[in-house]
Amino acid sequence: MTALKGNLIFGQSGGPTAVINSSAAGVFEEAFKHPDIIDKVYGAAHGIVGVLNEDFYDIGQEDPEEIKLLSGTPSSILGSCRYKLADPEQDEREYKKILEVFRKYNIRYFLYNGGNDSMDTCDKIARYLEQNDYECRVIGVPKTIDNDLWGTDHCPGFGSAAKFVATTTMEVFLDSRVYDRGMIIVLEIMGRHAGWLAASAALAQYKGYGPDLIYLPERGFDPKRMLEDVSEIYSRNRNVMIAVSEGVQTPDGRFIPELVSEVAVDAFGHKQLGGTAQVLANYLSEKLQGKNRAIELSLLQRSASHLASGTDIEEAYRVGVESVRAALEGASDVMLAFRRHEGEEYKIETFQMPLAEVANKEKTVPLEWINEEGNGLKSEYIDYALPLIQGEPRQEKSEGLPRFARFKKVQAGKR
Amino acid sequence: MTALKGNLIFGQSGGPTAVINSSAAGVFEEAFKHPDIIDKVYGAAHGIVGVLNEDFYDIGQEDPEEIKLLSGTPSSILGSCRYKLADPEQDEREYKKILEVFRKYNIRYFLYNGGNDSMDTCDKIARYLEQNDYECRVIGVPKTIDNDLWGTDHCPGFGSAAKFVATTTMEVFLDSRVYDRGMIIVLEIMGRHAGWLAASAALAQYKGYGPDLIYLPERGFDPKRMLEDVSEIYSRNRNVMIAVSEGVQTPDGRFIPELVSEVAVDAFGHKQLGGTAQVLANYLSEKLQGKNRAIELSLLQRSASHLASGTDIEEAYRVGVESVRAALEGASDVMLAFRRHEGEEYKIETFQMPLAEVANKEKTVPLEWINEEGNGLKSEYIDYALPLIQGEPRQEKSEGLPRFARFKKVQAGKR
Repeated sequence: MTALKGNLIFGQSGGPTAVINSSAAGVFEEAFKHPDIIDKVYGAAHGIVGVLNEDFYDIGQEDPEEIKLLSGTPSSILGSCRYKLADPEQDEREYKKILEVFRKYNIRYFLYNGGNDSMDTCDKIARYLEQNDYECRVIGVPKTIDNDLWGTDHCPGFGSAAKFVATTTMEVFLDSRVYDRGMIIVLEIMGRHAGWLAASAALAQYKGYGPDLIYLPERGFDPKRMLEDVSEIYSRNRNVMIAVSEGVQTPDGRFIPELVSEVAVDAFGHKQLGGTAQVLANYLSEKLQGKNRAIELSLLQRSASHLASGTDIEEAYRVGVESVRAALEGASDVMLAFRRHEGEEYKIETFQMPLAEVANKEKTVPLEWINEEGNGLKSEYIDYALPLIQGEPRQEKSEGLPRFARFKKVQAGKR
Repeated sequence: MTALKGNLIFGQSGGPTAVINSSAAGVFEEAFKHPDIIDKVYGAAHGIVGVLNEDFYDIGQEDPEEIKLLSGTPSSILGSCRYKLADPEQDEREYKKILEVFRKYNIRYFLYNGGNDSMDTCDKIARYLEQNDYECRVIGVPKTIDNDLWGTDHCPGFGSAAKFVATTTMEVFLDSRVYDRGMIIVLEIMGRHAGWLAASAALAQYKGYGPDLIYLPERGFDPKRMLEDVSEIYSRNRNVMIAVSEGVQTPDGRFIPELVSEVAVDAFGHKQLGGTAQVLANYLSEKLQGKNRAIELSLLQRSASHLASGTDIEEAYRVGVESVRAALEGASDVMLAFRRHEGEEYKIETFQMPLAEVANKEKTVPLEWINEEGNGLKSEYIDYALPLIQGEPRQEKSEGLPRFARFKKVQAGKR
């Protein structure tokens, strides 16, 4: 195959992770190794929005030392977006614009780092470019703390979030049992449709410092059933810790905050809405006359680079590198995915998944890994998740605080 | 002076910190070095409650390796309490009981680790024992994330909590600015009366990744004034981050959650109450039509041993050691305190503060360290706090997760 010469553009999309910038570092550093084929390396500002607006940076202008610091820098260094392209059969204006921009800047490599929606975006762009006879290699680079991408053993970003959730749960567990009186703790963990991350509280349980009960969206959630579960434990030891996915739904399909029928109004006349943990904690403590604390792990769980998994950092970097290599070797319209080897020792290899197979599907926690009562995980989950949280973070410090990567962001598009 | 031979009892009181167990390790390890004077070393279960109930452990039975692991173990290894003794002039029954227990177990050294209330407890016990001619050295060992103990430059526990708050604020700051649309973030930080910990968000600001506005309880809080502050910034860049102490009060003396006049009722008929951050975030986002996220750092900020300050760990250990030494040298009815040396280089020495001077006072952030607008800190605060968050945590890991100290807790009282 003759080499396809031209420029590369890389973008980051969707909710960030603690290691999404490690994938960026992998893409940039690998791309710079092939100056005879890849001339310019661009970074799109705010994902596909930056492509549409010709708003992108010349990554070649960045200091290589700052690129190295990306491994300890959370959030998306280039900025992200939650922008959904129209279906090209309904409205091809944006695709035309993308094609125009790609021609104008001779973009022959488009690498897009994101979750389910982004893989769909990639797939549509790849097919549109092909139909219009514009040669460009389009590669999806996986990321998501939700771990719900189809076809891959796991997703970069998940291991670090799981390590944060498990560690924090262990620490909070100890803290919550310090007094000689009852306490009900409800921990709320991200995951709207898949319970992978909420399930990582089971790693804390496995270490002996974890929640008594874990509820995932994969199973229907009945507040009365939960009250029974909690009552039984509370009557025994007056301490209960519950981990719950923000996405649990009642059998009639309502999320927990939707159960609040009469909304509070504050002194300023504004509505007050509670989150899943707060609603459940109030419910339980009134029923059981116990003290409660609702803890929402919020943005901390996806941005804690100070507690990232070393394995996750390496793998996120690796998919970045291998995405560039795959593109150089001629692959397109695929996502890099992980396959785990059989056997005791944790080992993965990467392979290419057609984007059409990834897009618009969701991988959830296998029902057979959830216990019969629907309030805990079986050992299969521990075997699956434990290898993914190994290894130390790589956050540089300056004066005891994180030293994040600083990009110059030299504008390269017309903007 | 002839050595006072007998046994030692140590207790932990009030809200735990990431390093309170480092002080315990200091007390235990130092006490074990003087077996000719101190025979038994006891740990009271749940502080003074364990003394009253003759519920305590023989620390000599614990594995020295587990005692070393205390530096990475949050929460109070012996259990804590929030129990306030009566005034002995009103009701001396509990003091009689304490004296009886001390005689029975030949307790000649009573070391108590806690905050303001605990120092008051210590002082009352010390004076009661003296009045009743029972020789026992009573030493207060300081701790509190609130940093509000009178007479000491700072308190063990504060530096680690401040490091967690500053690091997390930096990480969340990056995450919150990832999209190309407006976002209002309100971070709620512990501190009911003193703003030392909320002020540590200024360390994130100092690094360039911090809140635009910081509100402390030391200054009156006017929501309308805050709205003006926020509006000005929001109109400029559509992103605002606010750090607020849970203890801020309106000029008429109400905490923020008390501003919610009509309380929500959920589908189960239970009241829903919001926290400070949630109430303020809702207020701002309705006024400014922006997205918002309220983040309460909750128990995480006081239990994150995985991100403790190395300086804080050392100092917490040191006050434990020096408390034992002070007692052996004859001191009583005092608290160990820190004095900071003048000059560029951070250096402290310890000294003994009479407990009567510590008790029932509160040290708050100097008003002259707060800016004129009452929404930020001056450089004096940075100079003060930055040295306290230096140095790495010392949390042992096993399979990528914390390996906490495990105590056998061999019962030594009659219980």
